[in-house]
Order: sequence, then structure tokens, then C-alpha cells
Amino acid sequence: MSIDDLTKGAGEWLSGTGPMCDIVISSRIRLARNVVGYPFLSKTNDVQRRELERSLRGHIQDLDLPDAPFYVDVDGAGDLERRLLVERHLISRQHAEGQGSRGVAIGGRETIALMVNEEDHLRMQVLRSGLQLDELWDEVGRIDDMLGSRVEYAFHKRYGYLTACPTNVGTGIRVSVMLHLPALRMTGEMERVVRAARDMRLAIRGLFGEGTEATGDFYQVSNQTTLGRSEEDIIDDFKHIVIPKIVDYEKQARQVLLREKAVALDDKIWRAYGLLTTARSLSSDETLGLLSHLRMGVNLGRIDLLGIELVNELFVMTQPAHLQKISGSVLNGEERSAVRADYVRQRLGSDN
Amino acid sequence: MSIDDLTKGAGEWLSGTGPMCDIVISSRIRLARNVVGYPFLSKTNDVQRRELERSLRGHIQDLDLPDAPFYVDVDGAGDLERRLLVERHLISRQHAEGQGSRGVAIGGRETIALMVNEEDHLRMQVLRSGLQLDELWDEVGRIDDMLGSRVEYAFHKRYGYLTACPTNVGTGIRVSVMLHLPALRMTGEMERVVRAARDMRLAIRGLFGEGTEATGDFYQVSNQTTLGRSEEDIIDDFKHIVIPKIVDYEKQARQVLLREKAVALDDKIWRAYGLLTTARSLSSDETLGLLSHLRMGVNLGRIDLLGIELVNELFVMTQPAHLQKISGSVLNGEERSAVRADYVRQRLGSDN
Repeated sequence: MSIDDLTKGAGEWLSGTGPMCDIVISSRIRLARNVVGYPFLSKTNDVQRRELERSLRGHIQDLDLPDAPFYVDVDGAGDLERRLLVERHLISRQHAEGQGSRGVAIGGRETIALMVNEEDHLRMQVLRSGLQLDELWDEVGRIDDMLGSRVEYAFHKRYGYLTACPTNVGTGIRVSVMLHLPALRMTGEMERVVRAARDMRLAIRGLFGEGTEATGDFYQVSNQTTLGRSEEDIIDDFKHIVIPKIVDYEKQARQVLLREKAVALDDKIWRAYGLLTTARSLSSDETLGLLSHLRMGVNLGRIDLLGIELVNELFVMTQPAHLQKISGSVLNGEERSAVRADYVRQRLGSDN
Repeated sequence: MSIDDLTKGAGEWLSGTGPMCDIVISSRIRLARNVVGYPFLSKTNDVQRRELERSLRGHIQDLDLPDAPFYVDVDGAGDLERRLLVERHLISRQHAEGQGSRGVAIGGRETIALMVNEEDHLRMQVLRSGLQLDELWDEVGRIDDMLGSRVEYAFHKRYGYLTACPTNVGTGIRVSVMLHLPALRMTGEMERVVRAARDMRLAIRGLFGEGTEATGDFYQVSNQTTLGRSEEDIIDDFKHIVIPKIVDYEKQARQVLLREKAVALDDKIWRAYGLLTTARSLSSDETLGLLSHLRMGVNLGRIDLLGIELVNELFVMTQPAHLQKISGSVLNGEERSAVRADYVRQRLGSDN
């Protein structure tokens, strides 16, 4: 597999098959690690970076990763390819926009992404559809062990894993769950959820991580604390308390809408379908919003003209870099909107 | 025929058959007349009003009007029926909301509406699809002559016909043409047209006459001056200068849009179709706006899934009183929006 294959399908995390996948789009765990004998990246010179990259890439390529893993030289990749990886949630924006030798190893139908020379020497991400934190923890633990037997991680017996940014020191773990919460937004209760999450020292962000707005009713919930609590405790909190609670709120809000605002709800859902199957120009933001309503409609059984996997796939495929990759040309914003609308109509089998 | 038959079809003026009917929805001429021997209506008592109404109704019923004419006792009619007549452009809002004995005789597939005891004792309206001012002038002249041979009109040899409001004194004529100008609105040139029309002492109003906003890109252009110019001059101006000029502006604006903004134009047209065939709730204003875009799309051949007559008919049938008549029940705003959306989907043959 290679980066060009990414536009042919949507990766496991968007398959809409995991537990609670009507509301939990995906879950993700990433570990931050640094290698003994090298300074943090902000202090390295070009030679050290290149050495680090070559060494870590070699170790990663020796690992037994599932499903045709491949390595992308992010420094040598084109701008479009880098943005494609960001839209795909396989690398962070920082990694795409960074400088110097760096890369990412992708495997297991995009469930695994190992970033080399991002903020830390190594960021190991595992990502799956629905709520699958235990499975992810097993998987990332296995990878962490395999690499840890080949390189020596910077580790302090009191503080734990040492990381470039103090917020990651300790376990170096970040657990994130991407949620689709359209009903909470419609009923105006999302604010309350955001406040409650902040009280629990959780971060709530938009679709593309730090500094992004919640578009199309998608929210990423992640832990802020990495020090003083074990990985298992953090994961347990997510699995047994945080996520079930938010999912339950969303379900209740959906039931309230169905009971008290069925016409308004169906109106939103069907209008979304109407616009997606007829528009000749669709911005990225509008598309996300419409797909969000459509997704809720499919999950609530209010519209049966398509399945959830197609809706999920459209979320990713209609992003700017994906669209340009698919159409095979660099497009300005206006052109993208037209190509996006054509693409969506075609994928939805619209005659209009 | 009776008032209940009105919801079965849309009347001649919406048939979309007259000259220039892609842009000129309809043309209308009305004459204001008062009867000698009675004061203006604001000065009459109930007895005089009743006498006037009975007398004029009798004379009108003796006329040879085409196509199953019928008379509606507006004072005795229900609120819904009165509003139905306003939506149908068969009586004015003032006439609907007025007091005391009053009525309207309707004939010729709604091309003729003779209002008794509106602002003047008699208001004779003729209304047809497209630009048909000569035909209308012949028709209203014939009716005017027939009635004038039965009752004596208040007439001053210097000022002409005397009317309740000085703005109608003289000829008592008002010529109005209803135009559909979506492209001028989209290109932002409508302001210029409105200014030019005002310079020519023409009034530009919304869909339902005085005091209404232009909704859905529909504008009524009418003369302001009734004194010092002959009826023929006023009509000639409309026929040879005013209307052809505005129609030409609109056509040019459409060509500009087609040449320079084809995607944006098609986007508006197809989105309108998408929303009308899927929405579960449609307000009256939104519906007018969407039908306006759809109408332009049909006229420009950008969408061929329906004909102009159906679009025209939907303009009238989706008005509040029409909808309630069709559904056979009094509905609040929210209910109307839901019934309207269902009705539109059904008429457009939507499976969604």
C-alpha cells in the first residue's frame, strides 16, 4: 500500500463498525516517547534529526505490523500529500507543517500511525472505529514494547516518560474519542457538556484536534492529565464514565427531539439529503454540517436511502486535499466547492 | 363556479401562457368609479352602503361576463375565504379587511374581478397572464361601458372621474405588471431599476400590492399618475417602454449569470429543487424564494423536471389561506409549514 491508495477507501476507523459507532466515531490512543542519547527535537541540529529519523524508521520497518504497512517521508512529501495525511488523522497538523527529517509509518488499515520526529522523537498512535479503548491499549502497548526493546526510551523513575512538552510527561498518553453529538447541539445542551468535561480536566476540541472548531457537530474529547495517574486509570475513566455518560446524554437528546420536534428533526435530515443530492457548489464546512445531519438521520432510521459507512467515508473524502487527490489536480476554493458537489452527488447516486 | 373551486386550479393569470411570460407573470388594469347620488364610502352610513352594494351587485349580475361568473359577499364570507381571495389577487387586502356591505364579482377564469364598495364604489379589475395590456384595456373598457350605461358615474368635465382618494382622480386607472426579476436581484442591479422606475413616477411594490415587501424576487410595477394623461398614453408607456426595458435588463442579467456564474446559478436552482422535494417544513417566504429560483431554472432550461405552469400554481397554492382550504382545516404557522412542505413534495412528485 502507498499514500495514493488512501483515496480508494476510508480506513478502518471510519467503517462505522465499532461499539457505539452511532455516536462514537472513533477512539484513539497515542503515546509520546523520546530516545536516550538525543536532545528533545527543539534542541537538535539537522544531522541529529536525520540520524534519529533514519534510526527510528529502520526499527519501525523491522516491526511486525499488520496489513501492508508503509512509511511516508513527510519531509520529502508534497504539500497535498501532507494535508491528505492530516485530513486522514494519520499525522498531526504540527507534523505536516514542521521542518526537517520526519516521517510516519502507517499500518493495519490505518489503525496504526507511528510519527517520527513530531514534537517528540516518537508518537505512536492507534485509532479504531467506535469505542475500543481496551483493544487500542493492548495494541499500542505491544508496539511500545517491541520498539522499547530496540531503543532506550528517556525515562525518569520518579516522573516517568520524559517528553518535550511538560503536559505529556509521565505516561505520555493521550486518549481521544471522537463523538458525533448533533442532538446535544440542537437542543442547546452542548455547552453544559463542555463545561462538565472541563471540570473533569478533559479537553473538548474540533474535528482536527487542537485549535480547531467543532464543525458538523463533531467533538474530540481527550485527557489533559498525564502525570500521577496510570494509563489504565485514564482509560477506565473514559470507558466506564466519561464516554458512556456523554453518549447517554446524546441519546436522551435524540429521544427528546424525536418525541417533541420530530418534524423539525426530519426537516433537518431531509434537507441535508436534498442539498447534498442537488447542490452544484458545496463548501467544506457546509458539507460537514449536512453530513452530520444525514448521519443522525441514518442512525435514527429516519432515512434509509444510504448506509452509515458511505456517510462516514464522505466526511473524509470531501476534505480539500482528498478532493484534489481524487480529481488529480490542484484546485482553488471555488473549484473545490464545485468538484465536491459533483463528487457527493455521484457518490449518493443522485440523478439531479 | 364558486369560491371553493378556486383551490382546484390557478386561474388564467398563472397559466404561464401570455406574451413574455418567462419574466412577466401577469398584467392588470383596474378602473376606479363612483356612482352619482351617493357620497364617497368614508361618508356613507350602513343603509347607503347596503343600498349601493345591492344596486351594483344587481347591475353586475345582469352583465354578460364570460366563463361562469360568480359573486362573493365579502362581508358575509369567512376570514379564510377573504384571505383566499387576497392571495388569489381577486380582491385587495383593504377590501378583505374592510367593514360593511361589500362584495366581488369574479368571471372569465379569474380574469375579471369587480369589487363593490372597496375604497371606491366600484373597482373593476382585469388580470391576465403575461403582457396583455391591449387585450385588458379592451376588456375593462367593454365592462366599463356596459356598467356606465346602467349607472351614472361621478365625473367632472375638468378633473375626470372623481375618486375617494385624489391619487386616482382623472382616469381612475391603475396599470400594474407583475415581474419576476431574480437575476437583477442576484447581480445587485435591482436597486438601479427601482430608482429608474421611481424617476418615471412608477411605483414598485411586492407580490401583494401596497405596503408589501418584494418576496421571492417578484415585483409589481404600476403607474402613480392618473391625472393629465390619457389611459392610452399610460398603457403605451408600459407596453413600449417601461416593461420591455425592465424585461431586457433582466434578460441581460440572466445572460451575464449564465456566462460568468453558471455554477452559482445552477447551484441556486438545484438547491431550490432539492429543498422543495425534501423539506418537512417550509415557511411561506422561504417557499416563494425557492420557487422563484426554480422558476428561473425552468425558464432558462437549466432544469427540465417540471413545467412553468406547475411552478406558478405552487406560488398561489402554498399561500396560507390556500393551504388551509386545501387541507380542510385551520392551521397555526408551524402546522402550515409542515402541510406546505408535504403539499409541495406531493405536487413535485417527490419520493423523498
